[in-house]
Amino acid sequence: MARRKVSSIAEFSLIQAIARRFAGRASGLIKGIGDDAAVVATKEPAWWHMTTDLLAEGVHFDLDTADPTTIGYRAAMANLSDIAAMGAVPRYLLITLAIPRRFKSASVFAIYDGLMEACRLHDVALIGGDMSASRAGLFLGITLIGATAAGRALFRHGANIGDHIYVTGTLGDSLAGFRLLSERRSSPSKNRRVRPLSPADRCALIKRHLRPSARVKEGQWLNQERLASAAIDLSDGLSGDLRHICEESGVGAEIDGGALPISASCQAYAESRHLSPVDLAVAGGEDYELLFTAPPRMHAAIERQAHARGFCITRIGTVRHRRFGIRIRDTDGIMRPMPVTSYEHFFA
Amino acid sequence: MARRKVSSIAEFSLIQAIARRFAGRASGLIKGIGDDAAVVATKEPAWWHMTTDLLAEGVHFDLDTADPTTIGYRAAMANLSDIAAMGAVPRYLLITLAIPRRFKSASVFAIYDGLMEACRLHDVALIGGDMSASRAGLFLGITLIGATAAGRALFRHGANIGDHIYVTGTLGDSLAGFRLLSERRSSPSKNRRVRPLSPADRCALIKRHLRPSARVKEGQWLNQERLASAAIDLSDGLSGDLRHICEESGVGAEIDGGALPISASCQAYAESRHLSPVDLAVAGGEDYELLFTAPPRMHAAIERQAHARGFCITRIGTVRHRRFGIRIRDTDGIMRPMPVTSYEHFFA
Repeated sequence: MARRKVSSIAEFSLIQAIARRFAGRASGLIKGIGDDAAVVATKEPAWWHMTTDLLAEGVHFDLDTADPTTIGYRAAMANLSDIAAMGAVPRYLLITLAIPRRFKSASVFAIYDGLMEACRLHDVALIGGDMSASRAGLFLGITLIGATAAGRALFRHGANIGDHIYVTGTLGDSLAGFRLLSERRSSPSKNRRVRPLSPADRCALIKRHLRPSARVKEGQWLNQERLASAAIDLSDGLSGDLRHICEESGVGAEIDGGALPISASCQAYAESRHLSPVDLAVAGGEDYELLFTAPPRMHAAIERQAHARGFCITRIGTVRHRRFGIRIRDTDGIMRPMPVTSYEHFFA
Repeated sequence: MARRKVSSIAEFSLIQAIARRFAGRASGLIKGIGDDAAVVATKEPAWWHMTTDLLAEGVHFDLDTADPTTIGYRAAMANLSDIAAMGAVPRYLLITLAIPRRFKSASVFAIYDGLMEACRLHDVALIGGDMSASRAGLFLGITLIGATAAGRALFRHGANIGDHIYVTGTLGDSLAGFRLLSERRSSPSKNRRVRPLSPADRCALIKRHLRPSARVKEGQWLNQERLASAAIDLSDGLSGDLRHICEESGVGAEIDGGALPISASCQAYAESRHLSPVDLAVAGGEDYELLFTAPPRMHAAIERQAHARGFCITRIGTVRHRRFGIRIRDTDGIMRPMPVTSYEHFFA
C-alpha cells in the first residue's frame, strides 16, 4: 500500500505562490492555474500540436550534478524543440512536479525559473499543472502545446527520393560540452592524451549543453514558406533521428560526412581529445537542431531566405531509395552504413 | 552524472506495438503517435481544456499491491474527472511512461489496457506520449484534453451566496473500499471490533475504489444547460474540495451532514466498523463525484432533468458569506467547523 501524503494546504499555497510569480497572461488564455483544468480559446480553424515528456531524478537528471534552474531550462527546451520540428508556434505549458520532502521551496522556484527562462524566449505561458509530495525523488512532467494554421505542419513522413537533407546550426557541441563537464569531475591525471582547450571553446561547448536553443523560428519559417517535405528535431542524434524520418517516409538516405556542420569549438575539442569530429556530430544528441528534407527545386529559396533571416542551414545529404539504406560518406570518401548509435541521453 | 540509457530501437518498436494496439481514429485527429508532436484540428471557435497528472511508483501507487491495469484505469479516470468538472467533452490523451528494466512488456500493455478501458467509456483517443527506460521505478504522466463550446465552462470561482450546494452519486465508498482492501492484507485477529460485511457490500465498495467512474455526462449536462454556478470534482474529499470552491469564489459554506448521500454498502461498512458514515463521506477522497453550486431558481430544473436523465444528484448545503466559514451541521444538529482533513491519496 503506497500513500501520497499531500498536505493539501502546503501544496495549495506553493501552487498559489508559483502562480503569482510565473503565470502570465497569454493570448487566448481563459483560465490558467487554479481550476480542474486550464482553458484556452480558439477562434479560427487551426491545428494544435501537443508534446509531453517525463523526467525522473536519477534517470534523466541528477541533482548532485545539475542545478534546478538548468534542469527546468533544458526540460522546457526539449519540448520547445519538438514543437519547433512541427513548424508550430509554441503557446502553452503545463507542468507536473512530484517533490521530495528534503527539497526546499527555493529549489522548486529555481526549476520554474529555468522553465520560464526558456519559455519567455518564445512567449510561452505557464497555464497549469499539478504538484505533489514524493518519497522517491524529483519527477517533472511537461506538456507543451503549439499551434499552426490548419493544414500546415512539418511531419516526419514527407521525405521523397531525391530530396535534399539539411540541418540547422552545428552538430556535436552538446556532447562535447557534456564530456567537458564530466571531465571536470574525473581525475585529470588519468587523461594523459588530453590537450588544453581554450577557455572560449570550453565555455561555448558547455553553454551549448546547459543552455541549448530550440530552432523555433527556423521551424516556423520552413513550415510557413512550405519549403520542407519532412522534419524532426535532433534530440537522439543525427543517426537516430534520420532513421525516424527514413522509417516514417519509407526511404533511405545518403549523408556526406564532410559536409556536416561542426563548430570551430567542437573541432578544437575533437582535436584536443584525438576524436573524429564527424563521429561526435553523428552520435551526439541533444543538439536540438532541426533535421529536414526539401525538394531540390527549393534549394535556391532555402539558401536565399536563410541568409536573409540569419539562419544557419547546411545541406548534408540526399534522400535515397529505401533499398539504399542509411549510409554516410566518410571524409576519406568511403561510403559506410550509418552507425546505429544507442544514444545515451545525459544531463551534466 | 545521470544517464538515461535509451535503447532507441527497443523503445521505438514498443511504441509502434502500443500504437498498433491502442491508437484509434478520432474526430479531428491529424497525427497521433509517431511524430514530434500529436496534431489535432479545430474548425469552429471552441474552448480547450487541458489537465495533467504525474504518478510515481512508491508515491501514488505500489506495484506489489496494485495490478498494472488498475493503475492505468484509475490514472485515466482521475484525469477524466477533472475534465468532467469543467463540463467538457474529453477528447484526447497523451501518456508518458518511464519503465524499469525489470518490467515486462506485458505489464506495459496492461497499463495501457487499463488506461484505454477508462478512455473507451468516454470515446477518448490515445494520440501521443513518450516512453523511456527508468532506473528508479515506474512513472506515469498523463495529459487529457477536452473541449466545450466557446464561452461555456464550469469554473471553481462562480459560487454566489445563497446558491445551493450539490453532489453527484454517493460519498465515502472509495475510502471504505480502500480500507477493505487494506484489511485483507493485515491480520484479521487484531480487528476484534470488526463485524462481518456482506459479500455484495464488500464487492460494491472495492469496485468503487478500483474502478471509479468520472461523472463526465453529468458535468456536460450541468454546463450545457447552464445550471451550475461552480463545480469541482471530489478527488481530495468533500472537505478539501469544497474549500477550493470557497477560496476561489470568496464565499463560505454550510453543509448538512444528515443530507450527505451515503450508499447502503458504505452505511453497512461504517456500522460494521463502528465508524461515523458522515466522517467517511467528509474525509474520503477519490470518489470522483462532482461537487457543484447552483442558484436556487435552478433547483426545480436540476431535480427534474437529473431524474429524467437518470443522474443521482443530492442537495447537501448552501453557500454562505465568507465570514461564515465552512461549517457542517452534524446529524446531532450541532454546527461545527468543517474539519480540515489532510487527505491521503492512496492506491490499494
